[in-house]
Formats: sequence, structure tokens, C-alpha cells
Amino acid sequence: MTNHPYVPRDLILNDYVPNLLSQSAILAAYGIASVFVVLFIWLVSGKVPKIAKVDRWLMCWWAFTGLTHIILEGYFAFSPEFYKDKSGFYLAEVWKEYSKGDSRYAARDAGVVAVEGITAVLEGPASLLAVYAIAKGKPYSYILQFAVSLGQLYGTAVYFITSYLEGDKFATSPFYYNLYYIGANASWVVIPSLIAIRCWKKICAAQQLQGQKKTKVR
Amino acid sequence: MTNHPYVPRDLILNDYVPNLLSQSAILAAYGIASVFVVLFIWLVSGKVPKIAKVDRWLMCWWAFTGLTHIILEGYFAFSPEFYKDKSGFYLAEVWKEYSKGDSRYAARDAGVVAVEGITAVLEGPASLLAVYAIAKGKPYSYILQFAVSLGQLYGTAVYFITSYLEGDKFATSPFYYNLYYIGANASWVVIPSLIAIRCWKKICAAQQLQGQKKTKVR
Repeated sequence: MTNHPYVPRDLILNDYVPNLLSQSAILAAYGIASVFVVLFIWLVSGKVPKIAKVDRWLMCWWAFTGLTHIILEGYFAFSPEFYKDKSGFYLAEVWKEYSKGDSRYAARDAGVVAVEGITAVLEGPASLLAVYAIAKGKPYSYILQFAVSLGQLYGTAVYFITSYLEGDKFATSPFYYNLYYIGANASWVVIPSLIAIRCWKKICAAQQLQGQKKTKVR
Repeated sequence: MTNHPYVPRDLILNDYVPNLLSQSAILAAYGIASVFVVLFIWLVSGKVPKIAKVDRWLMCWWAFTGLTHIILEGYFAFSPEFYKDKSGFYLAEVWKEYSKGDSRYAARDAGVVAVEGITAVLEGPASLLAVYAIAKGKPYSYILQFAVSLGQLYGTAVYFITSYLEGDKFATSPFYYNLYYIGANASWVVIPSLIAIRCWKKICAAQQLQGQKKTKVR
């Protein structure tokens, strides 16, 4: 008999322990922590001399996404048995809950683990470096933001395409499908796309300027 | 009874048809076609005014990798039944042969298909655009090469990590493991890494120049 709420129903998860926290408690904690991070970075970034508003928003985004990658996705990537947790540990609760929208997390699908591992180990720290790079106006600021955004987009593409190829059958109900599988991932499609386009333009502009300068020197 | 040479031996491939071309014929055709492409681009690129040697080599690489992505990997991504081919069609022969180094190709592993699909559809045409961009000295030349290289590296990372997570058990023998799984993929780790580092430096240098100019204007 299946002892878990996930689909497909023939998925075997020995020693599964159901969620101890409610959905609203899990979402509220993530929401409140995120608002706190954004507010904190918004306030601190205000002290950077002559910084543009868009750069302050970007610092908030990179802090939020970087911490999400390192803490939430980092825990998942290296905790193959999170669904056995009996202690109500918050990060295990998050992934027990999210697996209702995509059971490949509980099932430890290799594609999902690979993408989450790359995201946590490389993109997480790189996102935090972007916060610093923007604040200090580093020359590598745009190319770093471009690289991380492209990594996020590639990861999301692999995530959605593999699920599609396997029949898109991993959500417990349309409610969880829309809220977690689609809703929770949408930001990581839209925002990295916007940032990648912006960085592409900025980098091309600087390159064009350098090209003109070289032509003049000739 | 298993009717194919691949491992794991419990992989089921109904209507599998063995290779009709020999290994040496398959490899020689790819090798000769590649040398032809590189020679052709090397000769044509020589007519671009004031072009550096490194840029001519890069044009050769982008033409070679772009055609590999579009033709070989494009065929694989959209041909789920290549292993049933009875006609000796070259591209089906290539993937029947390569599957000896990684049976996930014949087994249609979702992670492999997702990565190959992205590579063929996005990175293939983008690689050919890079040939043009270098020849014309376009301002987007470096950021385009950086983007495609990063995509190649991400794809290769997902490719190797998923195999590792599933027990690295997809090669018929150490010979095929080393020649195909490691050997054939090594170029797509080393060369994109070198190109990504080069583009990163070029882009940072242009950004620094622009930064200095702005400071002067102030």
C-alpha cells in the first residue's frame, strides 16, 4: 500500500513521514524570510553612493535567489532522504510539500538532482557575488549576472523538458501543479530572461564603444 | 533474450537493428567531413580583412560545433526510433554506435534528450551565428560566444552528473566508455571553458574602459 500522497502512485518511498507543518506555515515562513532579505538589502543598498534604483532591485533579487539556491536547493541536493524526516525540520518540510507539485523531488530523479546540484553549488554563491559586484560597480558585474541568469534559464529548461518527455505526470493535483510546478518556477523564467536581455544590451553597448575607439585610433 | 549490444542488459529495445556500417567507416566519415568543414572555413576566413589567427580558429570551431549540433544531435533529438533503422542511414548508424558508450541514447533517457534538444535547437544555430559575428566583428560577438559556450558546459555537466547519479553503468565496455563517453565529450568541456574565459576577460576589459570614460566625464 502506498504510504505517501505523491503520484505516480507506484512510486515507492519507504519510511516516508508526512508533513508535520501545514502548507500555510511552510509558505508563510519562506515568504516572510524573503521579504526580510529584500527589505534588508534594499535598505543597505541605499547607502551605496550614486546607485540606480534598478541596481538596488537587482541586488535584492540576487540576494533572494542566491539564498534560495544555497539554503533550500542546497539542502535538497544533498539530502536524499528528506522525506523520512520525523523532526519537522523546516527544509525537509519544504521539499515534502513541494513534491506534491513534482514528485521527482521525493523520487530523487537524476535530472532534477543534477540541475539542483549545479544551481546550489555554482549559481547560489555566484548570485551572492553579484550582490557585491553591483554594489561595488565591478567590471564583471554584467557578465556575471548574465552567466547566472543563463544558468538559471538552462536549468529551468531541462527541468520542464524532462518532465514533459516523461508524461508530465508528477503533480498530485492541478492545484499543486499550478501553484508549485508552474507558479514557483515562473519567476525563474521571467526574471533571468529580463536580466539576461539587459546584460546582453549593456555588454554590446560597451563593446561597440570600444570598437569605435579602436577605429578612431586607426 | 536481449537483441542488442548495450548495457544494462535488461534494457528493452524492440525491433533493434544492428549497425550496418563498421566503427571505422562511421568515425572516418565524421572525421573527414569535419576536416573538410574546418579547412573550408579556414580558407574563407582568410579573406576577412585584418582578422586575427585566433578568430579564424574560432570560426572553424563554431562552424564544426554548430554543424555537429544541428545535424548529428538534431537528428538524435527528433528520432526516437533511430535504433530500428534498417537502411544503414548514416545518422542512425552514428547513434547506434555511440550508444555503445552511453546506452541512454538508445533508451531515450529524458535528461539526455532534453540536453540534446536544447543543444540542437538553440546552440546549433547560435554557433553558426557566431561564425558570422566573428567575421563581421559584431559587437555581440563575445557575449554570443560566451552564451553558447556556457550552454555547452551546462549541458555537459547535466550529461555527466545524471549518469554518475544513476551509477555510471551505460557503457558496453571500458573501451567504448573511454572513446565515446569520455573522449567524444572532452572537447566540449575543454574548448567551451577556454572560450568562456577569453570572452569573460574581453567583456570585462571593455566594461572597465567604459567605466573609466564615465569617471572622466564626471
